[in-house]
Amino acid sequence: VIQTGQDIAGGAWDPSVDTRQRVLEAAGQVFAEQGFRAATVREICARAGANIAAVNYHFRDKEGLYREVMNFAAGMALEVHASMPTLLRDGSIRPEERLRGFVRGHLRRVLDDKVPAWHSRLVMRELADPTPELAMLCDRFFRPVHAALGVVVRELLGPAATDARVRMTVCSIIGQCVFYKHCREAALLLMPEQGYGAADIDGLADHIAEFSLGAIASMRAGAERTDA
Amino acid sequence: VIQTGQDIAGGAWDPSVDTRQRVLEAAGQVFAEQGFRAATVREICARAGANIAAVNYHFRDKEGLYREVMNFAAGMALEVHASMPTLLRDGSIRPEERLRGFVRGHLRRVLDDKVPAWHSRLVMRELADPTPELAMLCDRFFRPVHAALGVVVRELLGPAATDARVRMTVCSIIGQCVFYKHCREAALLLMPEQGYGAADIDGLADHIAEFSLGAIASMRAGAERTDA
Repeated sequence: VIQTGQDIAGGAWDPSVDTRQRVLEAAGQVFAEQGFRAATVREICARAGANIAAVNYHFRDKEGLYREVMNFAAGMALEVHASMPTLLRDGSIRPEERLRGFVRGHLRRVLDDKVPAWHSRLVMRELADPTPELAMLCDRFFRPVHAALGVVVRELLGPAATDARVRMTVCSIIGQCVFYKHCREAALLLMPEQGYGAADIDGLADHIAEFSLGAIASMRAGAERTDA
Repeated sequence: VIQTGQDIAGGAWDPSVDTRQRVLEAAGQVFAEQGFRAATVREICARAGANIAAVNYHFRDKEGLYREVMNFAAGMALEVHASMPTLLRDGSIRPEERLRGFVRGHLRRVLDDKVPAWHSRLVMRELADPTPELAMLCDRFFRPVHAALGVVVRELLGPAATDARVRMTVCSIIGQCVFYKHCREAALLLMPEQGYGAADIDGLADHIAEFSLGAIASMRAGAERTDA
């Protein structure tokens, strides 16, 4: 628990919305750089040019501040990926094309630095080293994407596919996409010849879509042979 | 830089091998739990029942201690995965079976908790939030695995496959395997019906192998059609 600003910095409450927003953005950066445990409210305040009383007033304590930062990050992720669930369920587009569009859009967004770097770093930290906020992130952000991707995968796999097969296939697709994000620094060291410009990212997306569609078609053919 | 034990704890040098090993193991746990930045030499010493002079004597400072811990972890990973490069290059086994064996062995080792939990947590932290030690980890551990997997993938894809296709296919296979590790907590929340017992892990491995072999066969057929 943080002491009041009067005790530590001698400052007064600062109830302005502008200060709240500045603290939130500074906190996002500091939590992303250092993780929840190592980050200090003192450093966040210094970076935001706010006093500790403001954190106390707006967010109560470090946990409360982290919770708001994660909510802010989830909201931003939802906004950036907003078109995904709609695209994946759009019956006017062939399911193969919906899958291609999903992979390309997902990879562009996670690798192409459209989102501020601190945001995706924070989400990766939360995945690698979860806090109680992971459940919120799953409910608001990951679950709708998994569910919508499951609809396309089920169409592509055909009626013989079990729920487990649909689930594992969704994970095979997501796993290929997030690899380049989660292991980015190692990938740069291991494969210096792999570029990450816009055309390179589209090339990776084309590979993942082709790999996955080939796999799905082959599994569908196998299941139908077994049925017959 | 750490001060000498005389200054901080009033203790003397402790040059014993036993103390060195105790500090190393405690450091592995503390770095894994808290990350390099948040971990303190003080806590590591308290957990090892050693004084700070011993860290100073054996490892020089926190950076030196972390370097030795990462070397220890890389050595352990090499030992646990020792059979992989040999299996992947064993010409007496069909390449499809080598790929199946690789996926099954890899998934069992990373999910089946044979390796102490701190070890894999440390490696995941290093991937998510790299220090200069990531280069060592890539050279000693990841690169040989990638290279050996590349040999099998090249055999399976056939002579028409480009280097880029081989590289991206290796990443598609590794990405599917490490997903369950890197996103384990999120996967538990999103898919409570997915078990992680030995039979469940083998089921996941069978899916990943079947998915990948289907994808590879389909890409090979496509490339050969284009050639013809």
